[in-house]
Formats: sequence, structure tokens, C-alpha cells
Amino acid sequence: MSSPAIERILRGPTGLGTAGLQLRPQAPAAEAPAAEAPAAEAPAVEALAAEATAVEAPAVAVPAAGAPVPEVPAPEVSAAEAPVSEAVVPDVQLPSVPAPTVPAPSVPVPSLPSPTVPALPGAAAFGMAALGVAPAAAAPDGGKPRTGDPIPGLYHHPIAEPDPARVEALSLKIKAWAIDEIELYPPEWEKDFDGFSTGRYMVACHPDAPSIDHLMLAARLMVAENAVDDCYCEDLGGSPVGLGSRLLLAHTALDPLHTTPEYHPAWEASLSEDAPRRSYRSAMDYFVRASTPSQADRFRHDMARLHMGYLAEAAWAETDHVPEVWEYLAMRQFNNFRPCPTITDTVGGYELPAELHALPAMQRVIALAGNATTIVNDLYSYTKELSSPGLHLNLPVVISECEGVSRKEGYLKAVGVHNELMHAFEAESAALAVACPVPTLVRFLRGVAVWLDGNHYWHQTNTHRYTLPDFW
Amino acid sequence: MSSPAIERILRGPTGLGTAGLQLRPQAPAAEAPAAEAPAAEAPAVEALAAEATAVEAPAVAVPAAGAPVPEVPAPEVSAAEAPVSEAVVPDVQLPSVPAPTVPAPSVPVPSLPSPTVPALPGAAAFGMAALGVAPAAAAPDGGKPRTGDPIPGLYHHPIAEPDPARVEALSLKIKAWAIDEIELYPPEWEKDFDGFSTGRYMVACHPDAPSIDHLMLAARLMVAENAVDDCYCEDLGGSPVGLGSRLLLAHTALDPLHTTPEYHPAWEASLSEDAPRRSYRSAMDYFVRASTPSQADRFRHDMARLHMGYLAEAAWAETDHVPEVWEYLAMRQFNNFRPCPTITDTVGGYELPAELHALPAMQRVIALAGNATTIVNDLYSYTKELSSPGLHLNLPVVISECEGVSRKEGYLKAVGVHNELMHAFEAESAALAVACPVPTLVRFLRGVAVWLDGNHYWHQTNTHRYTLPDFW
Repeated sequence: MSSPAIERILRGPTGLGTAGLQLRPQAPAAEAPAAEAPAAEAPAVEALAAEATAVEAPAVAVPAAGAPVPEVPAPEVSAAEAPVSEAVVPDVQLPSVPAPTVPAPSVPVPSLPSPTVPALPGAAAFGMAALGVAPAAAAPDGGKPRTGDPIPGLYHHPIAEPDPARVEALSLKIKAWAIDEIELYPPEWEKDFDGFSTGRYMVACHPDAPSIDHLMLAARLMVAENAVDDCYCEDLGGSPVGLGSRLLLAHTALDPLHTTPEYHPAWEASLSEDAPRRSYRSAMDYFVRASTPSQADRFRHDMARLHMGYLAEAAWAETDHVPEVWEYLAMRQFNNFRPCPTITDTVGGYELPAELHALPAMQRVIALAGNATTIVNDLYSYTKELSSPGLHLNLPVVISECEGVSRKEGYLKAVGVHNELMHAFEAESAALAVACPVPTLVRFLRGVAVWLDGNHYWHQTNTHRYTLPDFW
Repeated sequence: MSSPAIERILRGPTGLGTAGLQLRPQAPAAEAPAAEAPAAEAPAVEALAAEATAVEAPAVAVPAAGAPVPEVPAPEVSAAEAPVSEAVVPDVQLPSVPAPTVPAPSVPVPSLPSPTVPALPGAAAFGMAALGVAPAAAAPDGGKPRTGDPIPGLYHHPIAEPDPARVEALSLKIKAWAIDEIELYPPEWEKDFDGFSTGRYMVACHPDAPSIDHLMLAARLMVAENAVDDCYCEDLGGSPVGLGSRLLLAHTALDPLHTTPEYHPAWEASLSEDAPRRSYRSAMDYFVRASTPSQADRFRHDMARLHMGYLAEAAWAETDHVPEVWEYLAMRQFNNFRPCPTITDTVGGYELPAELHALPAMQRVIALAGNATTIVNDLYSYTKELSSPGLHLNLPVVISECEGVSRKEGYLKAVGVHNELMHAFEAESAALAVACPVPTLVRFLRGVAVWLDGNHYWHQTNTHRYTLPDFW
């Protein structure tokens, strides 16, 4: 809990665009517009933290059947005092009713055995010691970036080079899986598979993974998610037409069909019919074996969000519709990296308990993190997407189209939007860690933060895929 | 735990189509094709039940930071013994690795105060005493059904008439919400709103709700879900074109956008722009106030599933594609009543803990229940859908088209598919209740079962909407 990374999390925002994002430990969601929301949430989080640290306390007794049970107050009693039609709905969905109606979640009990960073041999070499060593700072403004430089002005945290031995081992293993186990691609795609650098990517994003096998959980899912995106949605045969059907049928590789014996075998066989489904099915099968049921459920939910995001984007593509900026940002909260950082605990060999994951403040932190790191993709892939047929939507393009500014101005404004989201993520993550210092929760927040750093590193250094536009 | 309803759950399958669905308390997912899966699951569930009943046991101690931590075994060790490319993936996703890698979920601690049926005044009159009084039986085959009769041969459980006083109170209140709080519909739609009989529907489905306010949680969401379906997808202005965008933007009323202060207000304003979003937003706001964060997260996930289902159906409608029967069944597992029965604990004023909800056996039971009760809708709305423009897909039509049989034969086969799913649901629900007799889990299973009975009752008796075809 005293590592540089945690200190960085707890230090809060340090860069531009943090107006209104002050650190308020008593109210993690400090900028929620509804006045009553933070006040209602703070006691619940404090109570939770108090319970969590009282590790010797007995579990809450389950009343025997037939025992007198306190009545649950009617929710409308409170609602009547703050009618929905007049109240501003808090965007963090903090409960505004008294504690008896929305009690604090029960004592979080880790169900995997390592709530702290595992003291594994060589862990220091895998990036943990490097976290926070480089100061949190934006790249200097001005000057033309060279190949492999970060985007000028982009707020980010440089990381140390991922351990080459681990990268090599993971790269060999993920390629063997792709070729031998799922027949992912024809030989002519090998260069692009290698150029994606899955091994380097995942080692950079999961420095606390206890083993290559843990890293493989993330690597398989990353490859599978890209296979679905490429083959169903994008460059490699994708199309908006019929996408809703393809994505749902692929989703059943993650969230299986339960039907009658007559119709089950045809569904089962379908999961081997194309590379996207083979990869989803195999990657999920490994993931389910290594995760708790709650972690698998969390992943399915994040993948449903991802698929909804793909389908909103496809709806716009099909009708050549350019959304408003806020609409684009809403779509991009779903078509988002979210399923990648949120498996950080499974890849790390521990569990953020489901009740802590569901906390509104945690949901908000995850969304902010996912949104910031997804805009990183929009920015680094901007030049690549210029070569797509038609108008490929990304945040710079949508800002430019909707706000009547040049592409360059749209791009630079998008950098600012990213920076605001990153600062909000860091501020609210720090506030949550202070309000609820449960070891698994703090480690999870750190895991999300380092995932973002690794994701930036991968985009910055993946010159096989990305080059920056000529805007400086 | 000794009510007739629980006895019915525990009794297991009694009707047709139950071959292979034997009650095996040691292995809830008895028909999983992979031989190793049930053996691996049973100990975990038993351990869970043992922990859950030891209510005086202290909570699991959280190791202090820096304490030695057991290493997590690599998941690939087991995987190598059962390669994915050869193994049959169990459709219930039971972990096949040893317990240390997939430990039993931690002690379930109810975070709402009533794990048993609340001893509220008048609860007996609200249907609990009636559950199971009528024998579980299929309607007799043969003979032409009269108006309001059940479908001949459909396996179902008749219920007592819902309490008229409760129905009237709820009906008044839900209509006031629709008109005064969210301006749901123009005057000319009043007849259809009244004809939907939301009050009678929800009283029938939630006999253990402690109050009208609890029932309102379900009623608002039911109305909102129908508003989105009608206005975005179906009769009242819906279309497959652009649906992915509309559904995602509406979904942000359930799962809010987290963005910068500049773009937040336009999103906030969008939630009031049409009846579907006003109703989602208001219904969810009430639900979040009355539920735990985990319950709200569960609901969001089920609604993401629903929206994915709508989008698969829309993809087929847009291209006039008739799916295979298994594909239709997969779509219908998502475009499904699932979000309605899975709030039974919130509406009942208690909580099924997230870890128990995520258990593979529970996920399977929920899916089977949702699939059975969704086919009830296909069957009762068959005649109504004949009047839709184009070919409206439902299970009888898809069976008829794909298997080269008459519409009548397709319909009667669909009745059989429903019955099989109902029997599977009841058998596996009973097995899970035996394997894991935690009060909230058993009550939740009963809540799902009675929701299905209420849903059948509503379809059977809603002669304003439904009439049966002339097939007998």
C-alpha cells in the first residue's frame, strides 16, 4: 500500500483540465450534480471500509427461517421528497435514500488467496518497481514528434520497457495457441499477427501477473476480441449488415445457450465454424477455468457492453450518420477497452469481490479509465483510419464535423478531452482508495491504472500499426 | 422452506420430455456432456452450502499487506490434460480445474435484512399460500380451448386470482407514474396501456412483494421495457434501421455515461427527449434507490443481453433472413423476459448475493427459466403476430419454415420445446436448492418459479392482447 504507484493514485490530479475535479475523500464522486448524492454515499463507503478492516468480526448472522424480520421501508417514501421529474439524476447513480433501504455491501471476503501484490520471484523485474518511477507528466508541447514518440501534450505515464524474456515467452505461446489450437488465421495474415505484438502488449499491461499462464488469459482474450472486431465489424470482411446476428451468436461462446437436447448440438457445432467464434470459445474456456463465477459474469457483462457499442457504431456507418460529440462519447463508452483492464484481478491471481466491483464509485472509476484509454486509441489510430473507406468515425473527426473546426483543431481538442478523463479517473480512483482501503480494491485500482499506462505504451511504440498525423 | 412451492421445486420434473433430466443432488447440471464437469462442481457447491449454514463462523481473514501469499497454480496445467480442441465444452460452464484454482465463492452475507419470506400482514392473501395448491399439471390435450383457456398441452402451474385490492392499488399508481411523471403516452394509447394490465401482471408475478411500493419497482421497469420495445423496435414507430444507436443511447439511462463537464449536459438532457428514455431513466432511478449495487449491476447486464437480442432480431428482419431453429433459440435467450424474474429479490425486499447469482448452476437455471417463459410469449402472441407486416419470427414459424412442417405442426412442436425447457428448469432448480440450501438462494429460485407462473397466467388471461390459433 505504500508503493510509488499507490502514492501516484492517492496523489490525485496533477495536470491540465482538472478544474472541478478536486480530491474530496469524503465524497468520491465529487462532481455529481445532485447535492444529496455524495452525502448519502460517503457513509456507506466508510462503513464498508470499517467493516473490511475489522477482519476478525464475525460474519453477519443469517436469521433462521421464520424469525422476525425488520420491515423494508418503501422506497417511494424517500423518492417523494425528491421527485424524479424535478431532481437531477446523479450521473454516478449514488443512492439517495437512507442506509436501511440501501445498506452498505456486506463484508468483502476475498475468494482468491492473494489480496496483496504477490511476492513472486522476479516480480520487480516485471514492472512493479518501475511504476511511478517516471513522474506523471504530459509530454512537452511543441516540436514535431519523431517515430515512436508520444502524442505531444497527451497526459500519460511512461513505463519501463516490458521484460524481454517474458515478452518472448508470451509471444511464442500466444502464437502457438492461435495456430495450433484455434486456427486463427491463414498464413498471409502472419505479418499482421506478429505486428500486433500481443506479447509485448499484455506484459506491459499486466506487470503483476504471477506467471506466463496468467498472462495468457489476457492475451487469448485480446486476440479473440480483435478477431471478432476485424472479421465481423472492420477490415477483414466485416460489415454493419447482419452484424447483430453475428455478434449475438459469437456472444454465446461467452454466455452459453441453454436449450433442449435436440437443438443443442447445432449450437455447439457453430462455435467451431469461424475464427472469431473459435477464438472466443477457447479464450473464454480458459478464462472460466481460472476465474471465479463472479469474475466470469463481470467479463460477460463487459463483453455485452462492447457488442452493444459495435452495433451502435454499425448503425451509424450503415446510414452515414455523424453523431453528436456526446453521442459518440456514449458509443465509445461501450465500444471500449473496458473488458481488458477489468480482468486485471484474474490475470493478477486475486479477486476484487463482486460487491466492491459493483459500487457506484468503482463503476464510475472503471468507466472513466476505459473512456480515457479508448480515446488514446482514437488518437494513435487517427492516421491509420484515414485510409478506411468512407468517413471512419473517431473523436477528432466527430469534433471537427460537429463543431465546425479543422481536423487539426478537432484532434487537439480530443487530446484535451482525453486528458480531462484521465485526470478525473486518477482523482476519483484516489478518493475511492482513501474511502475504501480494502487491499483487493486498492490493488484493482492500481491494476487498472497500470493497464492504461501499458496500453498507452503499446500504442506509442507500435509503429507497425500507428503513425501520428502532421499536426505539430 | 417447507411450503408447497418449495416442495414443488424440490420434487423435480413430473411431466413429459424429462428423459435425461434426472434429479442428481450431487451434480446440479446433470446433463452436462463433459464427464469431469459435474464432479468438479459438486464439491464447490457443497462447500458453499456448508459455509453458508455456518452463520457463526468468523469472516475469512484478510492477510495483511506483505504477508506471504500462496501461489496460484497455473491454469494451463489442467488445460493441458483436457485440450480445448478435443474436449466438449460443457454448456453449463462448470469449472473443470481443481478447487485451488477456482475456489468456492466466499460466505454469502445477505445485505438486505429479510432472507426469508417476510412475515408481513396479509402476505398470505398475496399469493404465497396459493403457490403449489394447484397441482403441477399440463392442461388436458384435446378439445377446442375457449377464450381465456390455457394452450392445450402446455405444461404450466395455474395460480389463484391475484388479490384484487392490490391489483387496483398498483394499477392506479403505475398509471399515475406513466402520465404524471414520465408523460409516457398520448391519450389515444390509453386503451392499450389499460389493456396491458400491468398491475394484474406484476401482482401475479411477485406474490411475495412486501408492499405496493416494491411492486412499483417491477411495474415501472415492465412498462419502460415495453415502451422501448414498442417505440424503438416494433409497432409504434420502431425499425431495424438505426436501432443500434437508439438502444445504446437508451441504455445509458440504465448504465450512465461518464464524460467531461462539457459534454455531460447534452447527454443528461437526452434522457428526457422521448418516452422510452424518460421511462428507462425514471424506472431505473427508483430501482437503484431500492436495490444494492450488485442488484443494479445484475439488472444492467440482463438489459444489455435484452438489447443484444433485439439487435440480432432486427438484423434478421432487415435482411428478411429466417434463422435456423437453434439460432432463433439463441436470439430468444437474449431477447427474453430474463430481466423481469431476476429482480424478484429486489421486489421481494431481500438480496440473492452476487456470488450465488453468478454460480454456473444458477446461471443455467435462470437461462432455462427465461427461455421457457419467453416461448410462452411466442405461443400466446402467435395469432397477434400474424397481423404484423412481413414474416414475424416466432418459434412456431421458424420451426415450420426450417423443418418443412405446417404452421400447426410447428406450433405444437414449439409447445413441446417449451415443456422440455420448463421441466429442465424445474429439475435443475430443485437440484440446486438441494445442493445449496441457502435461504436467499432457495427463495430466489422460488421467486423465479412463481414469476413464470404469473407470466403464464397473464398471457392466458390477457384476452385484450391474445387469442389462440385454431389448431385444436
